[in-house]
Amino acid sequence: MREYSGLLTDLYELTMAAGYLQTRFDGRATFELFVRHLPPKRNYLVAAGLEQALEFLENVRFTGDEIKFLREQLLFSNISDDFFRYLANFRFTGDVWAMPEGTLAFAGEPMLRITAPIIEGQILETCLLATLSYQTMVASKAARVFTAAQGRRVVDFGARRAHGLEASVFSARASVIGGCLGTSNTLAGQLLGMGVYGTQAHSWIMAHENEAAAFAHFMDVFPQGAVLLVDTYDVRNAVKKMIAMGRKPAGIRLDSGDLAKDSRWVRRELDRAGWKEVKIFASGDLDEFKIAALLAKGAAIDSFGVGAALATPSDAPHLNLIYKLVEVERGGEIREAAKLTRAKATYPGKKQVFRRAAKNGEFSSDRIALEDEAPNGDTPLLVQVMRSGRRLQSGEPVGALRERCIASLEKLPAKYRQINRRADYPVRYSSGLQALLQKVRQRVRRSALQ
Amino acid sequence: MREYSGLLTDLYELTMAAGYLQTRFDGRATFELFVRHLPPKRNYLVAAGLEQALEFLENVRFTGDEIKFLREQLLFSNISDDFFRYLANFRFTGDVWAMPEGTLAFAGEPMLRITAPIIEGQILETCLLATLSYQTMVASKAARVFTAAQGRRVVDFGARRAHGLEASVFSARASVIGGCLGTSNTLAGQLLGMGVYGTQAHSWIMAHENEAAAFAHFMDVFPQGAVLLVDTYDVRNAVKKMIAMGRKPAGIRLDSGDLAKDSRWVRRELDRAGWKEVKIFASGDLDEFKIAALLAKGAAIDSFGVGAALATPSDAPHLNLIYKLVEVERGGEIREAAKLTRAKATYPGKKQVFRRAAKNGEFSSDRIALEDEAPNGDTPLLVQVMRSGRRLQSGEPVGALRERCIASLEKLPAKYRQINRRADYPVRYSSGLQALLQKVRQRVRRSALQ
Repeated sequence: MREYSGLLTDLYELTMAAGYLQTRFDGRATFELFVRHLPPKRNYLVAAGLEQALEFLENVRFTGDEIKFLREQLLFSNISDDFFRYLANFRFTGDVWAMPEGTLAFAGEPMLRITAPIIEGQILETCLLATLSYQTMVASKAARVFTAAQGRRVVDFGARRAHGLEASVFSARASVIGGCLGTSNTLAGQLLGMGVYGTQAHSWIMAHENEAAAFAHFMDVFPQGAVLLVDTYDVRNAVKKMIAMGRKPAGIRLDSGDLAKDSRWVRRELDRAGWKEVKIFASGDLDEFKIAALLAKGAAIDSFGVGAALATPSDAPHLNLIYKLVEVERGGEIREAAKLTRAKATYPGKKQVFRRAAKNGEFSSDRIALEDEAPNGDTPLLVQVMRSGRRLQSGEPVGALRERCIASLEKLPAKYRQINRRADYPVRYSSGLQALLQKVRQRVRRSALQ
Repeated sequence: MREYSGLLTDLYELTMAAGYLQTRFDGRATFELFVRHLPPKRNYLVAAGLEQALEFLENVRFTGDEIKFLREQLLFSNISDDFFRYLANFRFTGDVWAMPEGTLAFAGEPMLRITAPIIEGQILETCLLATLSYQTMVASKAARVFTAAQGRRVVDFGARRAHGLEASVFSARASVIGGCLGTSNTLAGQLLGMGVYGTQAHSWIMAHENEAAAFAHFMDVFPQGAVLLVDTYDVRNAVKKMIAMGRKPAGIRLDSGDLAKDSRWVRRELDRAGWKEVKIFASGDLDEFKIAALLAKGAAIDSFGVGAALATPSDAPHLNLIYKLVEVERGGEIREAAKLTRAKATYPGKKQVFRRAAKNGEFSSDRIALEDEAPNGDTPLLVQVMRSGRRLQSGEPVGALRERCIASLEKLPAKYRQINRRADYPVRYSSGLQALLQKVRQRVRRSALQ
């Protein structure tokens, strides 16, 4: 599949693009990408996916075959050759401002702002939404899992539960941004320079004559790093056999059963054998709630493998990111735009988000403002990342994004960081923005009366 | 990203592969892929994703860079060159049996069975799980949405809510297999030969001076196929203006508000204007439950656009497909394998699924049996699709898979097809399988006593 295909978009983006071209609507438009509300059980988001979004913007093209496909659509039968020629030469030429990956974001705050010829902004809507919303959702979940693990290692095990192979790689990436130490996804590790981790599957045990043989052969091959899976038939029997064999593995893994009770029992047996340095690794449908409960029960677990909860969080399987037109500039005239339906109103104008910190360095509140409002000592979160279609910085290593996220989590007051209670971090719209919304409302009302 | 990378797997598959090679464990293994339980609110699954799984099996390779990455891992420091040479020449050489896409499947039924040198079967576990589970989950949801729509058109709108761009294309594919008429995803339409559909976004309306101008310009460009979005500011005002303009669109689209009430009002206005053939298209966070409720309230809706519910079904965001070793053949000896932990036991042996139909053609029950048991007049569902790594059939068009799914749904008794109540379709394990499970249980027990 072509990774940077211009057709990776909803058809209506292309009908509107054709409409803009054919009616010579050649304004520059600004779109902003944000969520109206945080998903249930989320007090913050962790921005992620910008790198892949920028790669798409830099490389997106339409091939001859793709243009031919559009020409053959009945809907496009009245569209002039100009449009298809436009697509053949299509390049993204706009400016992009965005929150760096690993930044904490809240409802209403633009995570990305794009200013470009309106056709470009329209065609790129679908890919920007899909790219940013997926990774942001996963990184936001990972930060909760990381928080629940209280300093213990968390490794992403989500590859098999991800929505396909590409999704598995970017889910691994977002998991590490949100705080995971690494991933079981080998390709993600290789492509993105992340640590890869792996233990042993039940099939290894089942393929051998008995558990003792399965353990011994694995230790022969991996004398240093072997982590042995002990729950295929009976945990206690397996651990006793392993200790009786007298060959010390790097760790053991529990993948089912009562992890709190079994891990404490295993820890005692290992310690009794003098194997204090043998680590206990736990997996099996874990998430932040189960990890918190295990630790509350005194589970003796050193590392957690978390799969489905990261790759496809069941409590928030998608993020309702939206992409809204906030301003059109045409022939020197600027017109701010807003959606005014009661339930789904949006604020007009190009925005910046300012984050205020208390004297102790903790974040205290955010202000969503017009881009040219004064910071008043607060930190602006949106940074320009592209000018005229060219990137202004090269991509950051995933480790640096992870550090940004962890440092930000440390500055977030504890009540917003905890996983069990909803708490609304204070975010307000500046008076400048409020006034602009009123102005747009009046303009639309006048126009409706005409 | 390389689509058919051998590294698209969990690291433990590769450590075990190295283990099998280094300990000369050269048996042929059979693995089966199935779900232990259906997800909540699902009475059946629709098998999907086989085409992409087979493409992966045919094309999977390890590049020099990928092998180098593995060599550099500390864990692999004791692994001999033989293993890395093996990876450089890696090809899939096994046999595959599978349910054709669009087939209905139930808990416990193998949807795919693979027999191959154990190393190959192990390395390919992760990619087979990720590829089949995602599309099967989406197709299974789509079949419910299709059922709820009672013959009205459903179009996949999930691209922006999918887990990235590749996921959006395969989600569109699986949505069509499950009964959708087509998709808004243009690339999916082009690559997979599916119908593409599109209307108009709020940004088109917002970019123009007023709704009347926005509608008029769109009608200029798309005189035949225009579907106008009427909920940006006020539905009733927009529809009245549109009718007053006197230019008849192909349809109108409602994306928010009280869809049942608004659609009935719009229908009356359109009919009063003599525009009976103008269709009403509805979207906005729809799923099978909302569609059923709208139709129960007499909504006048001709077509539904469904997004997030298809691409990331929140009631079952992932499918717990598992991939279990069921048999190992080594030096002429066959040993059946099973996992015996109480909560997670699996049946050993190579299986076939037989589906029985009643005299009226309706499906009546399934029997999971050993592959060589007699059909007794029932239909075997697993078909051989690969021999020695080569495909036995070319891929079927998505339209044919959709027809298979719809024909199967028609044969499924109504109580399993309805969306609101759980009903367990009768599936039993044959006495031959039961006996084999006992045999394996006794063997493991004896071995544990040794």
